[in-house]
Parts: sequence; structure tokens; C-alpha cells
Amino acid sequence: MTLLLDALAAAIGRANVLTGDDAAPYLTDWRKRYVGRALAVARPANTAEVAAVVRECVAARAPMVPQGGNTGLVGGGTPDDSGRAVVISLQRMKRVRSLDLANDTVTVEAGCVLQEVQQAARAGGRLFPLSLAAEGSATIGGNLATNAGGVQVLRYGNARDLTLGLEVVLADGEIWDGLRGLRKDNTGYDLKHLFIGAEGTLGVITAATLKLYPLPAAQMTALAAVPSLACATRLLERSRAAAGAALTAFEVMGAITLQHAVETLPALRMPLPLGEPWYALLELSDAEGEQHATSVLERVLAGAMDAGEIADAAVASSIAEARALWRLREGIPEAHARRGGNVKHDVSLPVSCIAEFVESTNAALRRRFAWIEPIVFGHLGDGNLHYNMGTVAGTPIEVAFAHEQAINDLVHDAVHARSGSISAEHGLGQLKRGAIVRYKPAVELELMRRIKRALDPLGLMNPGKVI
Amino acid sequence: MTLLLDALAAAIGRANVLTGDDAAPYLTDWRKRYVGRALAVARPANTAEVAAVVRECVAARAPMVPQGGNTGLVGGGTPDDSGRAVVISLQRMKRVRSLDLANDTVTVEAGCVLQEVQQAARAGGRLFPLSLAAEGSATIGGNLATNAGGVQVLRYGNARDLTLGLEVVLADGEIWDGLRGLRKDNTGYDLKHLFIGAEGTLGVITAATLKLYPLPAAQMTALAAVPSLACATRLLERSRAAAGAALTAFEVMGAITLQHAVETLPALRMPLPLGEPWYALLELSDAEGEQHATSVLERVLAGAMDAGEIADAAVASSIAEARALWRLREGIPEAHARRGGNVKHDVSLPVSCIAEFVESTNAALRRRFAWIEPIVFGHLGDGNLHYNMGTVAGTPIEVAFAHEQAINDLVHDAVHARSGSISAEHGLGQLKRGAIVRYKPAVELELMRRIKRALDPLGLMNPGKVI
Repeated sequence: MTLLLDALAAAIGRANVLTGDDAAPYLTDWRKRYVGRALAVARPANTAEVAAVVRECVAARAPMVPQGGNTGLVGGGTPDDSGRAVVISLQRMKRVRSLDLANDTVTVEAGCVLQEVQQAARAGGRLFPLSLAAEGSATIGGNLATNAGGVQVLRYGNARDLTLGLEVVLADGEIWDGLRGLRKDNTGYDLKHLFIGAEGTLGVITAATLKLYPLPAAQMTALAAVPSLACATRLLERSRAAAGAALTAFEVMGAITLQHAVETLPALRMPLPLGEPWYALLELSDAEGEQHATSVLERVLAGAMDAGEIADAAVASSIAEARALWRLREGIPEAHARRGGNVKHDVSLPVSCIAEFVESTNAALRRRFAWIEPIVFGHLGDGNLHYNMGTVAGTPIEVAFAHEQAINDLVHDAVHARSGSISAEHGLGQLKRGAIVRYKPAVELELMRRIKRALDPLGLMNPGKVI
Repeated sequence: MTLLLDALAAAIGRANVLTGDDAAPYLTDWRKRYVGRALAVARPANTAEVAAVVRECVAARAPMVPQGGNTGLVGGGTPDDSGRAVVISLQRMKRVRSLDLANDTVTVEAGCVLQEVQQAARAGGRLFPLSLAAEGSATIGGNLATNAGGVQVLRYGNARDLTLGLEVVLADGEIWDGLRGLRKDNTGYDLKHLFIGAEGTLGVITAATLKLYPLPAAQMTALAAVPSLACATRLLERSRAAAGAALTAFEVMGAITLQHAVETLPALRMPLPLGEPWYALLELSDAEGEQHATSVLERVLAGAMDAGEIADAAVASSIAEARALWRLREGIPEAHARRGGNVKHDVSLPVSCIAEFVESTNAALRRRFAWIEPIVFGHLGDGNLHYNMGTVAGTPIEVAFAHEQAINDLVHDAVHARSGSISAEHGLGQLKRGAIVRYKPAVELELMRRIKRALDPLGLMNPGKVI
């Protein structure tokens, strides 16, 4: 294998082929659930170098693991422990290749951090709306490989929906230049959608042409206390009808989830008493201005109050207050982590099933595990819940971890029974590659296998992930 | 082949296996450019019958041509003249399977006419926004197979973007049930995007779960006279910035195109003098009401007037007036047809290239063909032009048809040089299957071929189309 190391060094420079301690940060996922080994970590600087690395790996029959910011949650970017794989890190490919304001597009390389893409758009007076907790370190290439979601999917869609074109290094080292900035192009099979969300198992995404939007003139944020998830669903419907596409986020958080957050992170403040079981965070992005946004939001909230859909509401009256409301939502994962974690599920359901799903699945879990405590939050507007399970006071979280598989199976079976998804936005990676076989129709798994064989006949692209 | 006819009759009833004169309407496309032959036309009533038809065809190695409303423009639904194919008409599969208002989704069978889908949504107080000239006879299955576009793509996307789930009968007769109503689902390769836009070459779409939207409270329409396409592009940018997602259509029409339309169709009236070279048709869909929509639209138009982007504008003050403005736009294809047709191109470009493309391509065409007259209109908001070529007064249109190939090559080369698409919304079918080989990278064609072989190894699904 030193032959391959030499070939990689010849292709991209020895300084960009990391081994030993230098490689270590690339071999563990950030939640520290997976630790792999690798022959080397290759850090190519451009598309031609990625192609050269892939060709050398193919020649040596070495498995390849593409990696972006290494912020994934399912081990999709971590190699197995065989030590044979080459991790291909895209982090050096950071160019914004072009910004076309009249076309509302930007073309960026895969290693650009999501926040850098947002900033490049903003510098041109445009919005790139993909937004998620890890945006300060996740790369756009990783966002695309996992079809990232986040908090504005309700309005702007997933990473997939924001992509017009891709450049991909294929499994044989050929480069597919599909970097088109077109809203309409019906000239054959849509290949970009095959690579987006494939978690690097069909090729290496090296660049993308992305959609931009006008910057909103104003954003208004409110937190509403809701008596039930059913009420939250009705509030969502009311908000969409009144605000149309101006409704850019609709999040829900359980009272227990918020209570843990404010207890654990002293910087967080609840602007309302924690007296209702659920809280909804609404964001309006308005093309006109603050006054108009305020009038729409207040009309929605007044109507919801009259209809009994909400018990109370706080509207942020400054950017600082709006940020404080968002910090409540964004602080939840950190608060969870500080409290020792919990058993996590990233599920989606038809919005019409969410309230019934939570009620009956909570009850089923409590019947089986008397110590369980649901710690739920998520993107109600997209039918996506982070339906996580902790333990009641007095029971250490380790008890939940000891029953993780049983909890997962119960939750995922309940999701499947309602035609939901067991991985709404995080992907399959290593974590759910086995579980998905339990739920996907055999016909669909077979289609996936045929596509994998057609595009990666040697099976070298990120083996052991997805399929 | 009578064996296959008997087998089809046994599977779906002899009355639903058409031959001879009964089959004739299915063997010609509606523009009468393609006339094919077929062993039979099968009209299955449900998904199981489609699967049975496919299995019998596979057993007999008979090619299959899926067909919806037979309104396609590229011969994608017409069989070749071998007489061996079985046309599979989906027209009997017309059920609305379910309407989920809280989830904003509807599940319909492929043979539902687009207008029926729109009506089912409207009956539930929702909008299904796909809208195009043939909506009274085109089926949703055909819309999906061709990834139809239309007039509201600017806001809601193409047919692809409106689809959450699909049911497909695969090339071997297996049924893939991918009918999910989920906004987020990252559990493997996105198969639905492979079948959408594949024009029936990978399988037969039998049903779909589609996204619905709130009905707008009001719609406002205006026609603006613009001194140039560059001004129209700036007006588009201004409108998007001011109205955000409320801008649901932005069409442009050349003055000559409009002049032909009003001369040919007496029912059409121009509300403005035909003194400027271009006219833009804007539509705002407002979540609040008419008063708000009017104020936004008037602000946009006043600003554009001050900036010199428009010379004049007419705002529809009633639904009847709005319909009259839209009829100007919608009457164009009929007016073209009555005047003997023209040489058509359905191209898309980055919006930033449109003005320069039209100017320089018009000039190049006129240098080569002194008698040529551009008759251009299209969806500027999507960068999609119907860049059609007629002849000046005194020159019969047959002269243009005699030079069709040379005109096509000049136009398509100019589109390709600007990274555009030679088929924005109509697909490839038979018409552009050859042309695309001139423009697609070899790597991309090879990927398409590999996918075709993986999903349809016998090559029986709509052969001779797309690839």
C-alpha cells in the first residue's frame, strides 16, 4: 500500500496526504460514536486532483470515503476499521467560483463551509436559505451529499431543492460537469438528484450551482404556548394560509425539552411561563418591511388566540429578542449533550399524523419503560420531529441507552406504520444502514442496489454506508 | 403476436385491448408530426393491471410505450412504425386516491387530467399550482413523465418539485410503492427523481403524491410595455425583491408575437398600444387580499417607470380583465398554428444571458436568412424562451421549414455556448433524441445509458425515446 501512498503524493503533493496522528481528526465522527482507520487522508485542492486521487484508489482497489466538515450524525463520513480506505477530504476546495446576481445563482466548491456560502450570497444582496445548527463547520458538499434540511425547509426546501447543478467525480475518476444554472432543463435523466443524498456512495460531489433568493426586508419571530400538538398543527395551517410563503419557519418544542434547556444553559431565558405542554416558534420573512410583517403576525396570533389554538404568545420586538427566541431552539441539542445525551430519533411523518403519533407512541413507550421521558422538538412545518427519549429524574440516562435498540424499534415501527421515514434529515450512514432494511420495500432496496452497481461497479465509493 | 393479444385480453379484458381503427387516435401525436404503429393499445384500469400488462409484454419481448393524454410536443408517447409495440394508455386510471388537507397533499392516479387534479385541490380549499396550456387534456402521469413546466414555475417549480412520492410499475412488471407524503426523507437514493422526466423509458408512473399550497386570497395581473429584454430582466429582479414569493408569473412576449396574435384571433385585445419591442405579463398571488396585492404591484410598477424599465403598464382591475391579459399570452400558440406554424425552440438559459442571447442570435439568424422573423415569447422568470422563427411578410413559412435543421443548429449552438438547455420543458422524446448527443457531455450520456441498462435491461420501455 505504500505504492498507493506514493501515487497519491505524486498526484496532490505529499503534504496533502495525511497519515498517523495527522489523519486522526478525520477518523472519528463528531459525536464520537464511530472511530475508523484509514490508509491515508487525501486533501486534494481542485477537481482534477480529486479525479487523480480517485483514479489512483481505483487502480489500487482501495475504498474511498468522501468527507466534508465531518459534522454528520450517522457515521457517513467515517471509514470502517479495516485501515484500507482513503478518506478524501474536500476541505481545501473552498472557492466561490462565480456569483450570478441576475440569475440568482452561486457556484461554489464542495469544501466551502455553509456559512461562507450564506455570506457570499449576502454580500451580493441575496439569501442562500439553507440553515442548520452546524453551519459554521459543515461544508456545502456534505450538505448536498446528505441532502441537509434545517430550519427553513418549510419555505425553501431541502439542500436538494436549492441545487440547480453539480460537478461530480465519478467512481472511475471521470469528471461529470453538470454545473448548470437553469431553472428548467428537460434533457434526459436528472442525474444531480441521484448524487444528492447518496452520502458519497455513488461519486464525490466537488462543486454545485445553487439557487439564491431575495433577502427579506424584515423577519419577525414569535413564541406561542400551545395546549396540544393538534393545536400546533392548526396554528401551522392558519399561519400558512395567512402568510403564504412568508412563513419561513415553524418549529415545535415540548415543555420538558425547553425546561431542560433553560435549566442547563443559564444564558437562555423563556419569555413565557412554562405552563403549556408545547411551544411553537414561528418566523415570518417579509418582502415589505417590519410594519407589514408585524401586522400579519399579530393577525395570525390574535386569530389563533380567539380559536383557542394558543394560550399565550411573545413576539420579538427587536433583533436581539428574535435571536434570543432562536437560541432557545438552537440550544436544545447542546443542553441535551450536557445532560448526558438521550436516545435520538430523526423521524418524519405526514403533518396530519404528528399529533396522534406522539400521543400514542409516548403512551406505548411509557407502558413498556416506566422511566422514560420524551424530550421532543422539531420542524413541525415539515413533519419532522427529533423524537428523543431521556429518563425521568432519578433514573440515570444509561438505563435508556441500555434499551436503545428496543426503543428504536418501537419508535421506528410506529413511524413506519404511519408511512413515515426513520431518517428525515440526517441520512443513513452506518447508523441506520441496517435498520432501513427492516422498513424499505424489497423492490426499492433492489433498485438502489442496481443503481449502485451501475455507477460504482467495483463498490469502492464509501462502502458500508447507505446500502 | 396473437398470443400476446390474448394474454393482454385475459389480463385486462378484451374491450380494453384496442387494435385497428380503435387504436388509431393513440398512434399520432397531437401536432401530427409523428405517426406510429402498434400491436395494440392496452387500457389497464389499475396498478395491478398495468403490472400484468408489463409482465405479458416482457414475456413476449414486446416494446411498451406509456401514454397519458397524448399532448406531448416531442413524440415521446408515439410508438415507432415497427408495429411491434404495445401502447399502455393510463387514461382509465383516474382516481383521486386521497386528499390530506392537514398535510397539504393529494394522491392521484396517473390518468387524472391535470385540470381534475387542480379541481380536487380547489375543492379542499387548496392550490395545486402546476398550470399549462394543455391542462384540460394532459394527464398528471404525462406531466410527471415529462417534468412539465408551465407558467408558475417561478414560484412553485416544475412538476418534479411538486412531487413527494410516486408509484411506478417497473420494466419487469414489479410495482414500486413510493407513495410517501413526506417533506423530508433521507433514507437512500431518491428514486422518484429518476422516473420523473424519464419520459417512460425507465418504468410506468401509475400514481403520485403531490404537494398542495394555500389558495391565494387575491391575484393581480399587469401587462407592462418594456423598451428591451434587459429592462425586462431588471423589472423581474425588482418584482422579486418587492413581492418575494408572491410573484407567481413573469412572462415576456415580443411585440411582433403579440401583433400576430391580435391580428389572427379577433377575441384578443391589447390594452396598450403596440409601441415597445417587448411586453411583460406579471402575476402576483397574495395571501392577504386585493388591496394589499394592488399596493405591492403599483409600487413595483411606479418604481420601474421612474427607473425607465417600463414605458407603460396596464393593471387588470377585474378578474375578467386579468383573464383577458392571460388570454393574450395563452392565445399565442393557437395564433401561430393558424398562421401556418413556425420553427420552434424551447430553450432555457441563465436569466442573466437572455437579453444578450436574443440580441446576438437574432442578428446571426438575420445575417444568414434575410427573410427570418423571430416570434419570441416565454417564461423569463425561469430563463425559458419559446424562441420561434417565422418569416417576414411576403415570404411563405415553407421557406423557414426548408431550413429548419440549419436554424435549429444555429439556435441550439448559441444556447449551448451559453450553458443553456435545448429542451427546457418539452423533453427529448423522438424529436430531440439525436440533437442532444451533439450537446451533452459524453460522460453524462454514458451515465444515462448505465441507468437505462440497470433499470430496463431488456430495453423494452419506450425504446427510441430520450436515449
